[in-house]
Amino acid sequence: MTPPPVVDGLQCGPYDREVFEQLRAGGVLCATATVAFWEDAVETMDALAAWHDLATDHADLVLLARDTADIGRARAEGRTAIVLGAQNASPLQGRLGFVRHFHAMGLRVMQLTYNNTNELGGSCYEEHDPGLTRFGREVVREMNAAGMLVDLSHSGERTRRDAIDHSAVPVAVTHANPRSLYGHPRNVDDATLKALAARDGVLGLATYRSISGRYAGTLDDWCAMVARTVDLMGVRHVAVGTDLSPKAGPAEFAWMRKGRWTRGAQRGADLSPGDGDTTEWLTDARGLARVADRLTGRFGFTAAEAEAVVGGNWLRLYGTAFIPYGG
Amino acid sequence: MTPPPVVDGLQCGPYDREVFEQLRAGGVLCATATVAFWEDAVETMDALAAWHDLATDHADLVLLARDTADIGRARAEGRTAIVLGAQNASPLQGRLGFVRHFHAMGLRVMQLTYNNTNELGGSCYEEHDPGLTRFGREVVREMNAAGMLVDLSHSGERTRRDAIDHSAVPVAVTHANPRSLYGHPRNVDDATLKALAARDGVLGLATYRSISGRYAGTLDDWCAMVARTVDLMGVRHVAVGTDLSPKAGPAEFAWMRKGRWTRGAQRGADLSPGDGDTTEWLTDARGLARVADRLTGRFGFTAAEAEAVVGGNWLRLYGTAFIPYGG
Repeated sequence: MTPPPVVDGLQCGPYDREVFEQLRAGGVLCATATVAFWEDAVETMDALAAWHDLATDHADLVLLARDTADIGRARAEGRTAIVLGAQNASPLQGRLGFVRHFHAMGLRVMQLTYNNTNELGGSCYEEHDPGLTRFGREVVREMNAAGMLVDLSHSGERTRRDAIDHSAVPVAVTHANPRSLYGHPRNVDDATLKALAARDGVLGLATYRSISGRYAGTLDDWCAMVARTVDLMGVRHVAVGTDLSPKAGPAEFAWMRKGRWTRGAQRGADLSPGDGDTTEWLTDARGLARVADRLTGRFGFTAAEAEAVVGGNWLRLYGTAFIPYGG
Repeated sequence: MTPPPVVDGLQCGPYDREVFEQLRAGGVLCATATVAFWEDAVETMDALAAWHDLATDHADLVLLARDTADIGRARAEGRTAIVLGAQNASPLQGRLGFVRHFHAMGLRVMQLTYNNTNELGGSCYEEHDPGLTRFGREVVREMNAAGMLVDLSHSGERTRRDAIDHSAVPVAVTHANPRSLYGHPRNVDDATLKALAARDGVLGLATYRSISGRYAGTLDDWCAMVARTVDLMGVRHVAVGTDLSPKAGPAEFAWMRKGRWTRGAQRGADLSPGDGDTTEWLTDARGLARVADRLTGRFGFTAAEAEAVVGGNWLRLYGTAFIPYGG
């Protein structure tokens, strides 16, 4: 039986033909690719333009998705739909009006903060989280109106809660794990996860070793985290958000962690020396093809539940988040 | 009888409700508004965002047009369709990929050069015009593919000729006059105008006093220029491109003329001390309502010919230029 299509709520880069082939081999119907960590408007536009060319050059394998209809087209044609996302609000350069501009240029997901507190709200790594700021509230409203998914993965807990409450449509934590399962500042409090689920939002569980603890080892370990998170939030609200970046090297990790904001050592999520960043069962996207079968085979999921977790929940959320609200 | 709708191929700014009301009173169905003279990408995005808000605030009078269907909607609803245009390639910041980005953000017209030679080609005010550069050819092709009208108004003669030849679809000189009628570097050689017409392009005749000479005085004077230009190019290729900016003050003119490229005195098109920049019959757009009637009443135009010149020719060109070519 063909495994159900996988939707990966967050990946990094870089991408090339080999990575696209891994996505196909992993049964990945759709993946969100990061176009900005610290990049400003023009740098993000460069990244978007590069994606346009990359998708054109490999149009037999991928397409850029602007809505769920594009994802449906990718499915019909056996291609992977790439959703373009930013892990920071840095592309806005403080401008509310740029939300619509970047939406027009194809951006469909934006994380309110990356590793540092910014004009919108607090980061999970800062000592104090000011919550969603006045500008942050404006941006969330503008994202709702434009049709851009609000991502809270690297935000502080207060900012996450504020944004969940403030958004007119369901939001996401595209790549993090429950803090009750592994205590890491990047992970999410149970109370926040319940609030996220209550507003019909979705959590993408990460496979990134540093924030997965003992759930990082094998596919069974990771599926056990899926099962526990489903117990916590409900099967409708749990999905996949690997944080995969199989081709990232030292330069990419240095940029993610240090950007231009520090000359000091920064390990990002990888706080404990000795932690690696990849799990043995998922060094690239090919391993994702095995998840649904494992969930049904050993963890008591029905086929429909497994399908929801590996892809259906993101597709439902995208169907709401990628269309203008109240326009 | 209601005069035929006017399409003004080029205006400057700033705009406010009073200017929008003047457009309505002038029977202006559609006007291209300038969003960039020297502005870079982010500055142009600011200008586009400001236009989005301005159009929302005055939605009873105007709408932003992305295609001729939007212009048709404006006509049905008694509003003025604003086409957003740049008078320079500065928003691209040297990036080919930004053509599509700015198209996605709503830009539909771009002049290849403003008053200075740039990476795309030569300006009409420079001593030597290198012609359309290799990058300029790439940009023209990308504009064709995206659906953005190529404007050659401030370009040098060689660059104009190269772009007319190179473009896959008809191009425009949105606001200039025949140099054979008034000798000014901003105006266009007869040979270029004939080449423009041969490729089915359109010239928007300017009312700007400094480049109109003796045709700037009265409406009859200006209509005489229209009639002579029609004799030169054919009625299918002559239109209106006023260069109106009724609310521009010294700060706006200083920006247009000097940008950030010089501390010296620069008068732009206004080369001769004593020349003004407005004509007595057209201090704002209201005067445009009289043009069609004058062309038929005193200059022997048929109603259909007058309608083509005051608006129809631009609408035909937009119908070709605003859609992707060869995509």
